[in-house]
This record gives sequence, structure tokens and C-alpha cells, in this order.
Amino acid sequence: MATILDGKKLAAELAEELKSKIARTGSRPKLAIVMAGNDGASEIYVRNKLIYAKQVDVSAELIRLGRSASQNEIFDAVAALNADDTVHGIIVQSPLPPLPDRSYQDHVFDMINADKDVDGFSAINIGKLCNGQRDCFLSCTPYGILTLLTRNNITLTGQHVVIIGRSRIVGRPLSILLSQKFENCNATVTLCHSESKNLADITKTADALIVAIGKPKFVGKEMVKDGAVVVDVGMNSVRDSTRASGSKLCGDVDFDNVHHRCSAITPVPGGVGPMTVAMLMQNTFQASTKLTVDK
Amino acid sequence: MATILDGKKLAAELAEELKSKIARTGSRPKLAIVMAGNDGASEIYVRNKLIYAKQVDVSAELIRLGRSASQNEIFDAVAALNADDTVHGIIVQSPLPPLPDRSYQDHVFDMINADKDVDGFSAINIGKLCNGQRDCFLSCTPYGILTLLTRNNITLTGQHVVIIGRSRIVGRPLSILLSQKFENCNATVTLCHSESKNLADITKTADALIVAIGKPKFVGKEMVKDGAVVVDVGMNSVRDSTRASGSKLCGDVDFDNVHHRCSAITPVPGGVGPMTVAMLMQNTFQASTKLTVDK
Repeated sequence: MATILDGKKLAAELAEELKSKIARTGSRPKLAIVMAGNDGASEIYVRNKLIYAKQVDVSAELIRLGRSASQNEIFDAVAALNADDTVHGIIVQSPLPPLPDRSYQDHVFDMINADKDVDGFSAINIGKLCNGQRDCFLSCTPYGILTLLTRNNITLTGQHVVIIGRSRIVGRPLSILLSQKFENCNATVTLCHSESKNLADITKTADALIVAIGKPKFVGKEMVKDGAVVVDVGMNSVRDSTRASGSKLCGDVDFDNVHHRCSAITPVPGGVGPMTVAMLMQNTFQASTKLTVDK
Repeated sequence: MATILDGKKLAAELAEELKSKIARTGSRPKLAIVMAGNDGASEIYVRNKLIYAKQVDVSAELIRLGRSASQNEIFDAVAALNADDTVHGIIVQSPLPPLPDRSYQDHVFDMINADKDVDGFSAINIGKLCNGQRDCFLSCTPYGILTLLTRNNITLTGQHVVIIGRSRIVGRPLSILLSQKFENCNATVTLCHSESKNLADITKTADALIVAIGKPKFVGKEMVKDGAVVVDVGMNSVRDSTRASGSKLCGDVDFDNVHHRCSAITPVPGGVGPMTVAMLMQNTFQASTKLTVDK
């Protein structure tokens, strides 16, 4: 019987811990969320962030730029927040509206002050992670996955971790983090993606399999080794006529058919998602203490 | 019969190409090499860089700080070169002298102006590589390995590449580069290191095996799949009483016993080493054209 890695429960526990810590240190962490466009999923993610922020006494400000925001409006919003000493953390919610110059999204992330980049997406933060420097913000989803596994006493050191998906916000930074010489990391990591051949042959060798590609039920039991740990980062909306909404959330893993094989598995929803939010607030708190120390 | 991947020959060809390009564009690329400490191997590496620079008409200046250089002297040297408009590329030769604050080496690399960081070691350059941004300098050894394979018509796309060694200057950036959506990259990459378990089981699945750990003849034939491509980044000095010098260079791969198995293999010396130097001059040229364009 697989252990269900309950991210929702752990995120709630971490909220209590963080709330106490914030009260004890007397800090007043403030997070600014810049949102452009009108992506439906983003609305849900942002709402969850605001709810969790309130729980832990992080002050969160949502800056809505509207669906027709220009590149310069986004740049100006970030620049203003960089200059605002009362703001400790800044995130720009993805996806941004598609604009002619596709590289502008990179520019937006890279212009966030590295000390306020609590999503850890900027080149400088991810680069520090690569170089093994600890004075960086870890991307929230990788950080959340590591925390979820560690708190459930799952050891990654020396294990073979296979990650499917090389996105800049999950798969890529996770592959770097888990193979670093950090506590409970030190894993042998294989990064798979859309061009990988013989995928099942590779995933079947994984002690831990982490899937982040956004394809509903992509991973079936034939891809999983007996006793493996499975982490499902997928959040796909699929049709479900039995529900009033007409849809339900579903992961990248075919949970019903896979969980029998696993020693541990994350559910969707309630697995990785809440952990991402929890780590964002952890980073924002860290940013606030850092600024306090520096001043 | 394995193809010998002749890096020395290719580096010489690339020198001709680069020399022509520099003459054609009328640029005057200048590289500054900062050297502290008195590492014997560094002396050889730096000499090779100076020789190649001369061949391709890159002007190279060696700044020797001596073995007792302080942290501040190193910082000051880099700062002066950052400010010098005639200098297009700056490298700080590793290893630096061990100083009490171990993180100072990171600071030295990170303080090099990103537009002059032709070794590509700074957090910002490696971070851009992670994020798939192309306006960065690729670390010279990874770039050299990719070029050596590509010029020998070895396809990496979709192949399983296993890298042994996670150093910040070879294994780590190489693992990121080869799994990016770049030309002849797109490989499935596994990064192994000192904590990896069942190493031979993993390396035997590799279509291409790249070794960068600095252990003489570490990889024997039992670790290599028939028909694999093997790239040896090791440069180890081992005793050899038959030579006047009393020593010889030897790679991380047991060449004599492994090469029969391979479809292609790099020799040591004459494989990856010369390619690293060639790519450094390529990057320096790029830096010089960039500065020209910007001004």
C-alpha cells in the first residue's frame, strides 16, 4: 500500500510553523504579485497564494495589469516594486500575455531584483543554484517537492531520480537541485523530455519518478518500477460530466493504475500544488529577514 | 574500429576559420587572463591559451598576481579589467589560492562583467543557459565537447548521454547544455557523481558517456556499452619511468581497454583539451563583436 504524500496537510503544518516564526521575529514580510493577461488557471493559483499568505501573516499585494498590458507596463510595474523598500518579494505570474518579442518574458524575470526574486526564476538565482551557492532563492515547486519528500523521510541521496519535463520553472531547476551536494539531495538525476527515446525503459529504472509535462495520465503502470516513489506535478483540467462544473483536476500520472506499484505517491490535487505555495511564503519570509539584516 | 575524435586537429582547423573571421571583420579581440597561485597544471593550460591566441590574432594579456595574492588584489584586478574598454574577455585561471573565505572564488567569477565572462562561469551566464536564453557565453569545455561531436557528425538528439562528474566548470554546465532545445543537443542526460550508486549499471545504458572526474583510468570496459561514444575530459599526470619527465598525461578512461568497444572516443591528450582552448577564443571573438555592436 503506497504512502500518500499529503502536500495539503504538510503545507498546513508549515503554515503554522511559518506563522509562529514571523510572529517571533517581528518581521512584516510583504509579497507583490504582478498579474497580466486573463489566464483561468492563474486566477486559481493566485487566489491560493493570497489565501495562504493571509494564513501565515505575509502581506500580499496583487497588481493586476489587465489582459491588454503592454511590455513596458509590465517592466514599469516590476521596476516600481524593485524600488519599493516595503516590498520583500516580487513574483510575476505566468503565463504572461503573448507579445511580439518572445524574449520579453525572460527580461521580466531577469529584471526582478535578485534579492526579491522569491520565485527563483531569474538567471542569477538559477545560476547560483547551478554553482552550488546557497545564497539564492530556490524555485518554489522544486523546493516544495524536496521538502515534501524529506518531511516524509524519503531519502534521495544516491538514488536514481528520473524527471520527465525540462521546463524552466519545474523540471530544469529540480534536476539541478536534486543532484547538488545539499542535504537529502545528492541524487543521480536523469532529465527526460519530448525528444527522449525509449522513455519507459528509462523511467522503469527510477527509484523516484517525477513528472511535470502537463499531459493527463501520461504515466501508466508500465512506466513505473515496483516500489518507486512517484511525484506528480501535473495539474490538468479534464472533462467530467458527473460534476456540476463539468471538469476535474487530473495529474500527469494515471494514479488509479499506478499507485499499487509505488512505495509513495503524491495525489492531484493536494500533493505538490500546496507545497509550491508554502515555499513561496517561506522564500518571502527569508527575503524579509535578509533585507532586515542588510539594513 | 573506433573513430578517434581528434580535438587537436579540429582545434587547428577552427583556428584557421577564426583567424579569417577576425581578419574579415576587422575586430581586435583582447583577452585578459588573471592568474594567482602557482599551480603547475595551470601554467601549462595558460601557455596553451597564449599560443592559440597568437595563432588566431586574439591579443592576450596575462596578469600574474603571484602565489601570495590576497582576495582584494584579485578583486581589484578583475574590477580594473571590467572597466577597461579595450578588454573584451576576462578569465580567472582556476584553481585560485585557497583563502580563508572559500566563497570568495564564487565572488571572483560573479564579479566578472557578464559581457566579458568568456569562460561562462558566472551565475548569470550559467543561469541564462538553464533558462534557454542564447545571449550567454557557453562554458568552454562543454562547448568544445559539443562542437567536437557535432563536427564529427555524431548526433545527440534523443540519445542517452551519461556524464560522470558534476563540477561547476564541466559536468554541471554540460548536463544543462546537452539537454537543452539547441541544435544537436536535446539529449536525455543523466548526471552521475561521487554519491551515485550502481554506477556501471547506469553507464552501460549510455549511448554517449562523458567522464570528467580527474581519476586516472576510472572507466574500464565493463562500464561501456558496445558502440557507445566515449568522451574523456580527464587530464591526469601519472608516473611513467620510460619518459625523461618521469610522468605522462592520462585520461579518466582506460583507453587501451575501452576503445575496442566504442564507435568513437577522444584521446588524452589531443581530445577535449585543445577544444576548450579553441572555444575560449571563439567566445572572446564573440565578446569583441558584441561590444562593437553595442557601441
